[in-house]
Amino acid sequence: MTEISEETIEDLQLNGLRIIQKKHGFRFGVDAVLLSDFAARTKPRKILDLCTGNGIVPILLSAKTDAEKICGLEIQPHICDTALRSVALNGLYPRVEITCGDLKDAVDIYGQSAFDTVTCNPPYMKRGTGLINPADEKSIARHEIMCTLEDVIRVSAQLLAPAGRLLMVHRPSRLTDIICEMRKYKIEPKELRLVSPSLGKPPNLILVSGIKNGGAELRVLPELILFNADGSETEELKEIYNRS
Amino acid sequence: MTEISEETIEDLQLNGLRIIQKKHGFRFGVDAVLLSDFAARTKPRKILDLCTGNGIVPILLSAKTDAEKICGLEIQPHICDTALRSVALNGLYPRVEITCGDLKDAVDIYGQSAFDTVTCNPPYMKRGTGLINPADEKSIARHEIMCTLEDVIRVSAQLLAPAGRLLMVHRPSRLTDIICEMRKYKIEPKELRLVSPSLGKPPNLILVSGIKNGGAELRVLPELILFNADGSETEELKEIYNRS
Repeated sequence: MTEISEETIEDLQLNGLRIIQKKHGFRFGVDAVLLSDFAARTKPRKILDLCTGNGIVPILLSAKTDAEKICGLEIQPHICDTALRSVALNGLYPRVEITCGDLKDAVDIYGQSAFDTVTCNPPYMKRGTGLINPADEKSIARHEIMCTLEDVIRVSAQLLAPAGRLLMVHRPSRLTDIICEMRKYKIEPKELRLVSPSLGKPPNLILVSGIKNGGAELRVLPELILFNADGSETEELKEIYNRS
Repeated sequence: MTEISEETIEDLQLNGLRIIQKKHGFRFGVDAVLLSDFAARTKPRKILDLCTGNGIVPILLSAKTDAEKICGLEIQPHICDTALRSVALNGLYPRVEITCGDLKDAVDIYGQSAFDTVTCNPPYMKRGTGLINPADEKSIARHEIMCTLEDVIRVSAQLLAPAGRLLMVHRPSRLTDIICEMRKYKIEPKELRLVSPSLGKPPNLILVSGIKNGGAELRVLPELILFNADGSETEELKEIYNRS
């Protein structure tokens, strides 16, 4: 069985877009959908998606925004290859451009202050927590093996133009780290949205945006609830999936 | 008209407790009630309430906890006087003890590491924001005229015993400042709860707790909703008011 035969092509139900995914490797989740919708609200023009994985965020952003350029950077070559083929499948090149590389080299690749918007759905788990197989692509996508949260924020600060915006999706348990690192690198947290699986449950995701050299004033948005009590998607989640 | 005649005595609907309040000065709000209930969950033994105002938080904590000692510190002498009379009215002295003084002198007053728990409902508004009459007691209670958020957190770190807890209620817009100052003074944020006036509305209060020298891991609790769509109190808010 070849690697290609272990893939699926999924219809994103958005402007006819499709994505190639590994059956058993990294597969996108609702977090990527939420991040792209959160970023689209800010009308970005030139976007870089760090830790882009199979390119799901750039591909969704191609439909959700009028951005002229949407770049994606991914460190794992075989995931990057999947992303490149998804971009081709959707005819999105050169508006969407995927690069295989280390985010710590991103300033060399793209240049200082090259983007008005950086998005990132980074590995959620701190180095040294949980069981890790470092050879496993899912482990690399989930754990801070290849990069840390601080790397993401430090590099984003260099990549963003003045007043540019960093948008991230992450776990609530890392909120303190995100906020402190953002402020340390002068990306002031400006918006926070907690995402709960259902009403009355603790949030399991957070959406955070920060503005380079922004003034101190955080706006906390209404909580986003994903599912109704009967397990169906809430109206807001349906809108987020379908909004282009 | 004497100052006394401009006061009201309010029944707190909790173990027969009452509080003396100025008709036109500082009056307690739902934030004090939420803070005392939030703090009571941690089974405190020796509590200091900074910026205690008319003593509402120590008085509520006397019913909500088995703490052996509950101190309150207030800088404005005439508000402090009201607090002292409320403590006497409820027969709570010496278990509840109000002191008139500046929180920047709190370590001299109480000693290093004297408390397992510090609570604070501090002035919400940053120095230099909004219209201020510095002679007005409401202005002093609302604006960082006499103390800043950093003062509160720095002093709390000195007053807390090892693994002691700081619990605050504040505005969501100050979350970044709270989290960064806590980490700076080695009070690690451990719990965060957003409080919304009603379902789907942005939060207008936050409850935050941190542990002195705690490990990094923030738990974000389910959002607290105060009022139903018809304006009545939610069951959870009723429980918070009545829980002793």
